[in-house]
Amino acid sequence: MTGLMTLLDTEPVVATAGVELLAEALEAQGVHVQRADWRPPPAATVEALNTLVTNDVSGANRQAVERMLSVRPHLVDIVTARDVIPALAEGTFLHAGPPIEWDDCSGPLRGALIGAMLYEGRADDAEQAATEGRLLSLSPCHHQGAVGPMAGVVSPSMPVAVIEDAAGSGLAYATLNEGLGKVLRYGAFDDEVVDRLRWMDRVLAPTLQAAIRRRGAIDLQVLIAQALQMGDDGHNRNRAATSLFLRQIGAALLEGRTGIEDRAAVFRFIDGNDHFMLNLVMAAGKLAVDAAAGIPGSSLVTTMARNGTEFGIRLSGTGDAWFTAPAPIVDGLFLGAYTAADANPDIGDSAITETVGLGGFAMAASPAIVGFVGGTAAGAVRRTLEMYEITVTEHPFYRVPILEGRGTPTGIDATLVARTGVVPQINTGIAGREPGVGMVGAGLVQAPLRCFVDAVNALADGER
Amino acid sequence: MTGLMTLLDTEPVVATAGVELLAEALEAQGVHVQRADWRPPPAATVEALNTLVTNDVSGANRQAVERMLSVRPHLVDIVTARDVIPALAEGTFLHAGPPIEWDDCSGPLRGALIGAMLYEGRADDAEQAATEGRLLSLSPCHHQGAVGPMAGVVSPSMPVAVIEDAAGSGLAYATLNEGLGKVLRYGAFDDEVVDRLRWMDRVLAPTLQAAIRRRGAIDLQVLIAQALQMGDDGHNRNRAATSLFLRQIGAALLEGRTGIEDRAAVFRFIDGNDHFMLNLVMAAGKLAVDAAAGIPGSSLVTTMARNGTEFGIRLSGTGDAWFTAPAPIVDGLFLGAYTAADANPDIGDSAITETVGLGGFAMAASPAIVGFVGGTAAGAVRRTLEMYEITVTEHPFYRVPILEGRGTPTGIDATLVARTGVVPQINTGIAGREPGVGMVGAGLVQAPLRCFVDAVNALADGER
Repeated sequence: MTGLMTLLDTEPVVATAGVELLAEALEAQGVHVQRADWRPPPAATVEALNTLVTNDVSGANRQAVERMLSVRPHLVDIVTARDVIPALAEGTFLHAGPPIEWDDCSGPLRGALIGAMLYEGRADDAEQAATEGRLLSLSPCHHQGAVGPMAGVVSPSMPVAVIEDAAGSGLAYATLNEGLGKVLRYGAFDDEVVDRLRWMDRVLAPTLQAAIRRRGAIDLQVLIAQALQMGDDGHNRNRAATSLFLRQIGAALLEGRTGIEDRAAVFRFIDGNDHFMLNLVMAAGKLAVDAAAGIPGSSLVTTMARNGTEFGIRLSGTGDAWFTAPAPIVDGLFLGAYTAADANPDIGDSAITETVGLGGFAMAASPAIVGFVGGTAAGAVRRTLEMYEITVTEHPFYRVPILEGRGTPTGIDATLVARTGVVPQINTGIAGREPGVGMVGAGLVQAPLRCFVDAVNALADGER
Repeated sequence: MTGLMTLLDTEPVVATAGVELLAEALEAQGVHVQRADWRPPPAATVEALNTLVTNDVSGANRQAVERMLSVRPHLVDIVTARDVIPALAEGTFLHAGPPIEWDDCSGPLRGALIGAMLYEGRADDAEQAATEGRLLSLSPCHHQGAVGPMAGVVSPSMPVAVIEDAAGSGLAYATLNEGLGKVLRYGAFDDEVVDRLRWMDRVLAPTLQAAIRRRGAIDLQVLIAQALQMGDDGHNRNRAATSLFLRQIGAALLEGRTGIEDRAAVFRFIDGNDHFMLNLVMAAGKLAVDAAAGIPGSSLVTTMARNGTEFGIRLSGTGDAWFTAPAPIVDGLFLGAYTAADANPDIGDSAITETVGLGGFAMAASPAIVGFVGGTAAGAVRRTLEMYEITVTEHPFYRVPILEGRGTPTGIDATLVARTGVVPQINTGIAGREPGVGMVGAGLVQAPLRCFVDAVNALADGER
């Protein structure tokens, strides 16, 4: 809207892409020129793109995105992580993003692992944990049917939500959201953090478990779809979804048989945390992307995830391979006295939301989110509109009211990213770069183009 | 947005206002002309407008709107209507809109009065009630510190919410919302309707009363402001406000001492009715307009209300006088097999929401509302933008995310309406025209210009 207003009301500005000669010629005539940093893909990539087109990449993508959209995520239970994730039963700890070794871990991931070791009784204090951390067996959540926001650490005795595909056989898991500020997933690990985790295990998990078992499964797709009509984007604005979740479980909590104080405390805990639904939305997305994986020849992006050091993606047609680049810096709003100097690079599995048509892709549904992540409402609309250029379809359930109910841009096609240079728009929290600090802000970030170019080249290589 | 797109992409359409000669000249050249029905105000009204400007109407309006915005509506209690509204203690029944006699009542108002007589035991059956209805003493809600949606009937033993001005001494009352469909306020009165009213008195009211007294007052202004960030307009979309209300009282319900079944039933009843908050938003508005009343020389609209037969307004500077016109027809979406032929003209005190910067004035915050009342999201934005032309200020708390947080257009100045011919945009439910039918749809309606012209003339007359 603002874009068009500007076009009508002000002096035109010329945007140029690629050929510098044109920009210079205009500037010589006193015209203001805005240079886009787009350049044609390198010859090898053009060749790769041509190979994929010849091999009907779009047919493969249609098949993959149909599978992505066929899942019906239902929240069915709360259980202990080690009881459902075999790797955890063997003592492995999970983390967000692509695979990583202890020595390469960023501060917040290391902080979260330290906190989880304290929580599990694997160390007596932070110092011991920091020393013994390199002995931990680590695995990406994404390899274990799970997803985790920010550091994304899942340790064996943490409670996890179980999300089941009511239209298939898939399962996905996510921890329960701790709230904002000084919390494990942002790398904090002091007593307050570990005590909260213990309360979540002792009170929150069994109380929620009883409520969910009493009322029956909660249809997360319907809930998320409604939340988008109420200003959520499904990533950094989940106030509506959290409100609707409390409506879903309220009566079952009231009718619960455990102590009234615990049930009231659980209601207050969720009411006090507008991000509570984030983890459940992420697990719903994990079900969708896992269903879309493994279609030969498909360039559909099935994973975008960051471990705080690297940003990694996976495609439907390239198996378990990760294509990574250094995790980018987030442009955001900072809490209190924190500044960009305190910020860790991009971290977390939460870009799963953008991978399934939410988050940065659904920001036009969520103009109020700009108060949290920065930018303008017009910019939020523009981000969504831009994402239609790199996606395969429009979501049949996730719809944008201000765009007259148009479905959100869904299913990123890596060939479109490589061809246009338009990269996925992500909104995200910002962790402090030092272990122990916690959250320092929230903002906007763009996926690194290189991941998509490398993935496209690899996909084409596999077909030649 | 769509307007500007159309401007850029398609053949221009010329809009003309007033002078027919210009339109005809263009049509002779094959140009499509859209005639607006605006015409200059009659000479007497121009004279009245000039008198008011000379007497500093805008100074008086600033004073009135400041008072309107100074109130802080808090929900503090649930009580029985006759205990707080003296007229009810004497047996009077209240109704929406300007004063009316039984013989002039529309079908839905008559139906609601019949239902209330049955509920009160003032008649044994509908036939008897219809015969004895003309013996009832009737008074507008607005004369008794109350407001009621649709028929707006309040009878002595109904429970009402008490809204208190935390920044002053005002009080306002509203009944509790019954839900949609076959309900009293839409003119239905069968056993199901009356039984529900009895349950509301027996279970809902005492349970809510206990919860509110336990937790303390609920700040409705903060709640409504948040709901506008979540896609509500405060009139026909109250899903967010109702969700937030359940969050506010959930823990207190959990900790209640009355039977678990009643408390769970109350939670489910409110959860099942996304319009539950409407009545409370209306009562918050009633506090605001009552605070703005009585400023000499002010043309600020302090009441817009309809009894199903007439649409009436009151100004701050014209005391208790009502300026009325026939209630207009609503342009809307109809439920099931109902059509426009089944619809009663506009009815209800709910245009109080538009009077205080919500409802039709806040529709840009609520693009999803068009699924309920019809129209387009672009049209919803346009309605809000147009209302800035006839309002005194922008609301400091009620803000529109998609307009970059701009405050909603607030405080209707009748002189601006009379001068421009731009009339208040209202969204509303539609009642069946026959008593007993209930809700048949929801839609959009415009306040009749004549009320505003008459009011402006009367205000000026009083100053000459």
